Amino acid sequence: MTNIHQMMSALKEKGLYREDFKHLSSEQAHKVEMEGKETILLGSNNYLGLCSDIRLKEAAIDATVKYGVGSGGSRLTTGSYDLHRALERKIADFKGTQASLIFNTGYMANVGVISSLCDRKWAIFSDKNNHASIVDGCLLNGSRLVRYKHCDMGDLERKIIEHRGSSNLIVTDGVFSMDGDVAPLDCIVKLAKKYGAITMVDDAHGVGVLGEKGSGTVSHFRVDDEIDIQMGTLSKAIGSIGGYVAGKQCFIDYFRNFARSFIYSTSLPPASIAASLKAIEIIENEDSKRVHLLKMANGFKNKLTDAGFIVSDTITPIIPVIIGDAQKAVEISKSLLQEGIFIPAIRPPTVSNGTSRLRLSLMATHTDYELEYVFDKLVFHAKRLGVIEG
Amino acid sequence: MTNIHQMMSALKEKGLYREDFKHLSSEQAHKVEMEGKETILLGSNNYLGLCSDIRLKEAAIDATVKYGVGSGGSRLTTGSYDLHRALERKIADFKGTQASLIFNTGYMANVGVISSLCDRKWAIFSDKNNHASIVDGCLLNGSRLVRYKHCDMGDLERKIIEHRGSSNLIVTDGVFSMDGDVAPLDCIVKLAKKYGAITMVDDAHGVGVLGEKGSGTVSHFRVDDEIDIQMGTLSKAIGSIGGYVAGKQCFIDYFRNFARSFIYSTSLPPASIAASLKAIEIIENEDSKRVHLLKMANGFKNKLTDAGFIVSDTITPIIPVIIGDAQKAVEISKSLLQEGIFIPAIRPPTVSNGTSRLRLSLMATHTDYELEYVFDKLVFHAKRLGVIEG
Repeated sequence: MTNIHQMMSALKEKGLYREDFKHLSSEQAHKVEMEGKETILLGSNNYLGLCSDIRLKEAAIDATVKYGVGSGGSRLTTGSYDLHRALERKIADFKGTQASLIFNTGYMANVGVISSLCDRKWAIFSDKNNHASIVDGCLLNGSRLVRYKHCDMGDLERKIIEHRGSSNLIVTDGVFSMDGDVAPLDCIVKLAKKYGAITMVDDAHGVGVLGEKGSGTVSHFRVDDEIDIQMGTLSKAIGSIGGYVAGKQCFIDYFRNFARSFIYSTSLPPASIAASLKAIEIIENEDSKRVHLLKMANGFKNKLTDAGFIVSDTITPIIPVIIGDAQKAVEISKSLLQEGIFIPAIRPPTVSNGTSRLRLSLMATHTDYELEYVFDKLVFHAKRLGVIEG
Repeated sequence: MTNIHQMMSALKEKGLYREDFKHLSSEQAHKVEMEGKETILLGSNNYLGLCSDIRLKEAAIDATVKYGVGSGGSRLTTGSYDLHRALERKIADFKGTQASLIFNTGYMANVGVISSLCDRKWAIFSDKNNHASIVDGCLLNGSRLVRYKHCDMGDLERKIIEHRGSSNLIVTDGVFSMDGDVAPLDCIVKLAKKYGAITMVDDAHGVGVLGEKGSGTVSHFRVDDEIDIQMGTLSKAIGSIGGYVAGKQCFIDYFRNFARSFIYSTSLPPASIAASLKAIEIIENEDSKRVHLLKMANGFKNKLTDAGFIVSDTITPIIPVIIGDAQKAVEISKSLLQEGIFIPAIRPPTVSNGTSRLRLSLMATHTDYELEYVFDKLVFHAKRLGVIEG
């Protein structure tokens, strides 16, 4: 108990303590009702606006009427529905792989896949900025977690050479969630081939956004045949909830038998599965939303850079505006909220010390007027706090 | 890759390989359509039949219309809704604690809570039959995982004494999922007090089934004030999906700030939260279902014992019929399926070698006629394979 109080006090002193959350009382959209106030949302992963798409709602409602609200058990017992089978087929086709397996969350997919695949004989080479769930997967299996510098292929190769003799897994985010940049998958697959490593991509933020028909970062780099394990989520551009892993049949068979986070969990409710199925169908057939989103995000990023902001290099709708100091990031975020704009301040431990940031993420449904308003307010408060000159 | 093929071959040789699952094409109820055939379901965790309750469906549909199909982000960013806040208040009131926190699954709740609470300085005393997610939580934080014999208080005390000097956590399932029996929480809290340990109960299978108004195993033993952390799920008797942790405000504040599986996941969709809210309201107000279920389960257990089956000692709707040999358990399960009865065979690694079993779980909605039919068929196939005499 002493320990708990100490750790919370330390967090409070650093200004990193999370008192409570901002609660929404409307659907996840470009404009929401947040704590009773109309607010423009620039922090959602709902990139294509599908969370509130009427077709996904209809699919979820139909599934609820037919199948009920819960699945009643693990996939191994009574929690497998024809819908789960259909979605696993759909994901495999969408990703161009032999098979796929659904997990309840991306966290569970990464933890389950990595911890079942690797053991103490493995070295896992993981980009320093990879998602926390990848790190937890590595910690769980007792393998050597070898972090390489963010997207630094020279550092990766040096570290692979240092660990020769192990079984090797190279794992990277496709799109980095807090930076919005893209892993050099073309270079990674070459190193993997050279040194005989298995490759895994967490494409949570790439699916629906990059690649042919939005199928993700692996498709963007045209390395579909060289990436062994494609992990992703159903909760961001796809608008629903869940994680998945796609790849060769033998991998999927293996994870179905050995991934503990898969085996020991009640499966996702039919409604969530039905919504994901409909979303992938929409993404495959309507590319215009995605193209519009990327063009709009690029324009907004350039506008921010021109205004003097330090913006991470990104080709995605994630636009991280680096503030540096955690307190300043929080203050700008708070000021914007008073003006009806929600942009979360991302602080340690989610990002490294000194790189606290405003993580803007655009949705295909944001209007030009909204973005103009956001830009003006952002510039005003950044100038006020000396983040940019003016 | 060699490793993967070897492990799958080994599993196949042992008869433990999971080729595929049985898929449902109807709602989770006492009778379902499974792979196109009408089947009596005796393997579901949907103890009270709430998965397909019209009131839960309506709550989920209303939430889908109002809030959309997904939550769009982590609770820390844009994934907190007034519904999440309301459910956390409801759970705390239902469990009689100061506060609660929702996780996406029970697996994530256990992993997040245990790995954030403890570190290398801790010894975690865990019942040998605890759920896999508790074990994974312990492995993740590098603490000493000390397993004590199933419900054996002498062994627990000896092991606590052996590890004096550490910070101590005693963690146990309330109701053991594969055994249906109940942890001696009255004795555990005494030992915890004597040796200054924190106590945690995973009540996934106790909530909605035991205790005052179905509030769980902690209430059943009247040790509400002595258990520090009450974990549970929303996916079994409650009929929806998710996990939670309930306890003193300081614990909940701590987990909100430090539990990585909570921080780094998109939150549950509004529809699932709305369904859980409605379910708890129903459980609090309609005790007759629960009372009927327990009475029916007790009668069925006695009938099986009288027929010569080895049945675990249970006061819950989980009735494990021990078969011993994994192949025989599978064969009976397969034969029953041909007769329109689904009872899963539970094999290693889920249970220990030599204790393969048929895990029957009853639902409040099973009819007398269905149970009679199941009993007759079970006896027939058990005799055929020499599991019981006759």
